[in-house]
Amino acid sequence: MSQRIAIIGGGQLARMMALDGIPMGISFSFLVEHGEDTRCVNNLGDIVTRSADQSSQALYEALGQPTVITVEKEHVDIPLLRELQSLCPVYPNPDGLEKFKNRLSEKRFLQSLEIPLAAFQEVTSREELEQAINTLAKPIFLKSQEQGYDGYNQYKITDDNAADVLSSIEFPSQWVAESFVDFQREVSFIAVRSTSNKVRIYPAVENYHHNGTLLTSLAPAPELSDDQIERAKSYLKKIVKAVDYVGVICMECFVCGDDILVNEIAPRVHNSGHWTSKGALTSQFENHVRAVSDLPLGSTEALGISGMLNLLGVTLSAEQACDAHSFLTLYGKTTRPRRKLGHVTVNYNNYDDAITRVKTLEELAYGKDV
Amino acid sequence: MSQRIAIIGGGQLARMMALDGIPMGISFSFLVEHGEDTRCVNNLGDIVTRSADQSSQALYEALGQPTVITVEKEHVDIPLLRELQSLCPVYPNPDGLEKFKNRLSEKRFLQSLEIPLAAFQEVTSREELEQAINTLAKPIFLKSQEQGYDGYNQYKITDDNAADVLSSIEFPSQWVAESFVDFQREVSFIAVRSTSNKVRIYPAVENYHHNGTLLTSLAPAPELSDDQIERAKSYLKKIVKAVDYVGVICMECFVCGDDILVNEIAPRVHNSGHWTSKGALTSQFENHVRAVSDLPLGSTEALGISGMLNLLGVTLSAEQACDAHSFLTLYGKTTRPRRKLGHVTVNYNNYDDAITRVKTLEELAYGKDV
Repeated sequence: MSQRIAIIGGGQLARMMALDGIPMGISFSFLVEHGEDTRCVNNLGDIVTRSADQSSQALYEALGQPTVITVEKEHVDIPLLRELQSLCPVYPNPDGLEKFKNRLSEKRFLQSLEIPLAAFQEVTSREELEQAINTLAKPIFLKSQEQGYDGYNQYKITDDNAADVLSSIEFPSQWVAESFVDFQREVSFIAVRSTSNKVRIYPAVENYHHNGTLLTSLAPAPELSDDQIERAKSYLKKIVKAVDYVGVICMECFVCGDDILVNEIAPRVHNSGHWTSKGALTSQFENHVRAVSDLPLGSTEALGISGMLNLLGVTLSAEQACDAHSFLTLYGKTTRPRRKLGHVTVNYNNYDDAITRVKTLEELAYGKDV
Repeated sequence: MSQRIAIIGGGQLARMMALDGIPMGISFSFLVEHGEDTRCVNNLGDIVTRSADQSSQALYEALGQPTVITVEKEHVDIPLLRELQSLCPVYPNPDGLEKFKNRLSEKRFLQSLEIPLAAFQEVTSREELEQAINTLAKPIFLKSQEQGYDGYNQYKITDDNAADVLSSIEFPSQWVAESFVDFQREVSFIAVRSTSNKVRIYPAVENYHHNGTLLTSLAPAPELSDDQIERAKSYLKKIVKAVDYVGVICMECFVCGDDILVNEIAPRVHNSGHWTSKGALTSQFENHVRAVSDLPLGSTEALGISGMLNLLGVTLSAEQACDAHSFLTLYGKTTRPRRKLGHVTVNYNNYDDAITRVKTLEELAYGKDV
């Protein structure tokens, strides 16, 4: 029987995995929630809508008896994945995913591996929040333990608004307060690990955020020392080994002087890795597909210098985006404010051209002020 | 309205165009003949089966009112394309396609452009065949003017079998007799031309055939002089300009000492360009899609050294084919002897590794003797 991958989720990450996996002869199915927009994966495989009363066995059948199940999104139903594990492999494994689902458990896990992090405190009551405000360096980022991503469900607490935040948040609720980090750069490291513990790591990518959401990337990240890169890679290797991770994983970091502090782990293919589709020998999507399918991993080496621009709530036509070194990827979604609708990847043999072109595309997409 | 490309044909070339065009937000439809295997393009767009009594207007509607119509195969209905031209652009244009549909008209056209060719003679009677046998250097290749490709409908005439061939071919029938060429290498040059006369040419690729069908390729082709490359590129530029060509075109050549003789023109994306999917910044498929969609062309520069192995009537599993530098592309077809079922692309930073790996894959696919 030929290989079939079932993906939990039907967004752009699922789309790009499928588009890279189909040429290898792999078929796909997608598990979506009722009412979820499935435009991204239309025609790329069977789309299965989850129903509340469905047994995991029935779900497995509906997904076409996949060879393996994987995930493309942040919020996954861990107990369901555990049930499905009795029917076929689930990669990354649910225990590992669970560690990264909650910001607090993630940070405690990273701490247990002696990986450097910004100072943080658990906040589950007004007293704990008050204590955090009095202890941590400001601005403090107060983030929901489970629901936040891309700047949603986050507060930035300064001396000016501390009293307001303190009075406006309702408890009981689960938060992590993170200390201000005076970082110079944000970079991420993307690794892929096979079922046989082979790990390959892409060159670091530098990320530029706007309103908490990734806007542009540049890879390989400039101005990191070999020692910083080696240290970061050692953290990532520790992490994937500790949770017996299979697939692609992203480690977002702050660069503070010589220090590399880990900010967040995203246990999946990641927006900051989109440059790999044109800028690395093997894309992160193909490598994820290979890893979960028990195939040899592809080389993660970079080809030239890549840049990436996210299209957030705006889009560019192919006429606008494409040129000799620029490539457009659209996700097939309808427009909504700030929604990730696509991205443009550029590839050159030098940084100046890559940076200039991304800047031009950014102005074309967003005007002078993003 | 978003861009839609209708492709005449539903084979692997159509599949790969669609897989590269879908991420750009382009949709596809495919015109296939009754009974044609459509597995290659299943789920990648609307598949329309041609019916004899259908008007070109009805066909255009059935194809979803495409923005542009293009072709993926050798044998196309030129009069139909001319009718469709009144409804939307058809690229490459039917007049140009017609020139390359018949071997004799192609050779005469190339001759009119003063492009070097092997000696040839038209053969439409036993007398002309006899004359060709007596005049041209042997072995002589006798090829059907319209029906032959990949070694089908061809005779290799030697002193030993000349009498047999002479008596066995039935006339009237249309042939071209081509003189023996003592070539050292077979190479092809693939160009893409935009609607605004912009031409980009990929680095030459060296091809190795088996029984008349492409088996492996190596790109950039080693051991061509700069002067040879420039000459070949000038031929190709003349050709695309002369027929106002839009899209990807392949020029197959013999290298004989310092001479470059043009053997054949394939007016479409071509098997010898499959290496571009991993080995060039823009694949031939994306560039064809861009060209016919009136988009800026992508860079044709090579990234490293690429090899390609065709899977002819045999296949390799992803486990066998994939490694850090090797990438599998399957077409989704059922197996038939000699049928093109897929290919493997390899990419390295040196020739030795690329050649060795292709050899290994070839043995894996075909055993010691292809």
